[in-house]
Amino acid sequence: MLRESGSLGMFNTDLIELKKIIRNNLIDNDSTVKLLLNDLAADDGKLIRGTFTLIGGSFGKIEKEKLINISAGVELLHLATLVHDDIIDEANIRRGKKTIHSTHGVKSGLFTGDYLFSQAYVIFSKNCSNKSIIDVSETIKSICRGEINQFYSLYSLDSTIKSYLKRISSKCASLFSLSLSMGAYESNANIDIVKKLKSIGYSTGMAFQLIDDLLDITSSDRILGKPSGNDIREGIYTLPVLYELRRGNAHLRTYLKEGNFDEALNLLKNSAGLKKSRETAQRYTNKALILANELPNTDESQALKRIITKILLRDY
Amino acid sequence: MLRESGSLGMFNTDLIELKKIIRNNLIDNDSTVKLLLNDLAADDGKLIRGTFTLIGGSFGKIEKEKLINISAGVELLHLATLVHDDIIDEANIRRGKKTIHSTHGVKSGLFTGDYLFSQAYVIFSKNCSNKSIIDVSETIKSICRGEINQFYSLYSLDSTIKSYLKRISSKCASLFSLSLSMGAYESNANIDIVKKLKSIGYSTGMAFQLIDDLLDITSSDRILGKPSGNDIREGIYTLPVLYELRRGNAHLRTYLKEGNFDEALNLLKNSAGLKKSRETAQRYTNKALILANELPNTDESQALKRIITKILLRDY
Repeated sequence: MLRESGSLGMFNTDLIELKKIIRNNLIDNDSTVKLLLNDLAADDGKLIRGTFTLIGGSFGKIEKEKLINISAGVELLHLATLVHDDIIDEANIRRGKKTIHSTHGVKSGLFTGDYLFSQAYVIFSKNCSNKSIIDVSETIKSICRGEINQFYSLYSLDSTIKSYLKRISSKCASLFSLSLSMGAYESNANIDIVKKLKSIGYSTGMAFQLIDDLLDITSSDRILGKPSGNDIREGIYTLPVLYELRRGNAHLRTYLKEGNFDEALNLLKNSAGLKKSRETAQRYTNKALILANELPNTDESQALKRIITKILLRDY
Repeated sequence: MLRESGSLGMFNTDLIELKKIIRNNLIDNDSTVKLLLNDLAADDGKLIRGTFTLIGGSFGKIEKEKLINISAGVELLHLATLVHDDIIDEANIRRGKKTIHSTHGVKSGLFTGDYLFSQAYVIFSKNCSNKSIIDVSETIKSICRGEINQFYSLYSLDSTIKSYLKRISSKCASLFSLSLSMGAYESNANIDIVKKLKSIGYSTGMAFQLIDDLLDITSSDRILGKPSGNDIREGIYTLPVLYELRRGNAHLRTYLKEGNFDEALNLLKNSAGLKKSRETAQRYTNKALILANELPNTDESQALKRIITKILLRDY
């Protein structure tokens, strides 16, 4: 997303440096571990979270190198969660490529994820205050809570909308919130700005996951770079499903009960639940944009608003 | 082991406090996560690593509460690796109880492990220098290297003794080394003592894992609190196996090739390879004891020597 955007050209040099630092952190002397990390280094992903950290850092004063390192730590942390998440979701394709565990086995995937977490902590320990390391740790705990609860609510037709929102808040919004506020905190930005960035990151993360869940229903494998319809097949019932079930869609309930996923997906594609979920994402986006308007009017805050808007409009 | 030992009575009060702090760190507001952590809180384990941290701290000056917290962090870190390790080894029983993943599924086990790592980092961030947090992270990376390499050498009849020693060094000795030196470093002990403790911890960890691997061959399920003979069944060929293969034991080679594990185990129980492995463990123990004799002669260094000796003689 970001790479194709001319509007973020101001970050080009930093993003090149960020990618370089990420790659430098995906190297190990052990030849087997090196091989596993090498597979991960082949793709940089969207780098939204890392970019958020760069933007956050612009509201205070910090050495550029330090900030880009923290940003790389955030991306490695995200990568670690993806590697473990893919094991859980039994996902074989991510970013258009085979996932670690599908190529090298679940066991390698598990410890590659652990390795990545630790490498992220190495970076944070070298560049951050202990307060931020605690924030990082609390964020990972939050992600774990979200993942564990998602697992326990698989195939549950009685899941509530409240529990869904809590789950995506833990799983996704928490890391967006950290990403945007951490660079600001470490650059000694004004505490009100740090708080505001936390809220903006949170709302943006909620919108991001809502859109992610919508795309899983509406998009194609090719555009997503991973199989669409995966959530429903794995028993992860996202907001469009829950809205439809709540308004008494008996067909959908039957399809899900019978494991008739293709019919369920077809039904959801034009459903009121889908439309309502998009409106929910829009509301979170609006909230983020209103807060972003209260930030100092800088090139970076303008860029942030463009990213927030793009997240809502993205198709992959 | 430690709990039954009157000779470690000097730590009794600290160990009670340590257990309390560990349990306090195994609580979460989320009801599902709480349930998973509760299963782990039911058993304290041997607490060797935590005790090592307490001993290390005695060589400098540090608030007792701070030291016990760091010690709890070390135990949580160890617990996290056990939870992930049990997934990899497909072990259903640990410490005489069902493992997390066998009760709650691999997915819960994976994220419970991640949660425990993060909680350990919360403790370290609140009580340690960034230098120690880097050491912790490098230790976890080392454990991951060991685990990944173990996975890639499964069922390999061509594994070398060198690669085996490197693997247990990464997997086990690294954490023993950290456990014993970290408390000392954080208590501002003399740098030579910190270095010595690192080496003592390393050699003790090597002996510990060697004995662990021997016990898997010689002990019973009941005494171990987990199924014996598990390593060989899972394709993990430990030192006695490698020694026997190297000296050309054709029967063993055939049994392993054919998956005749009971015969392989019977053969190993009285083998020269087993005896030689025990001697290797003895050599590491001696090395640790010689270095421990160079420490200041305190109650704690005496206790350390008793623990090192017990590790060699333990039967579970």
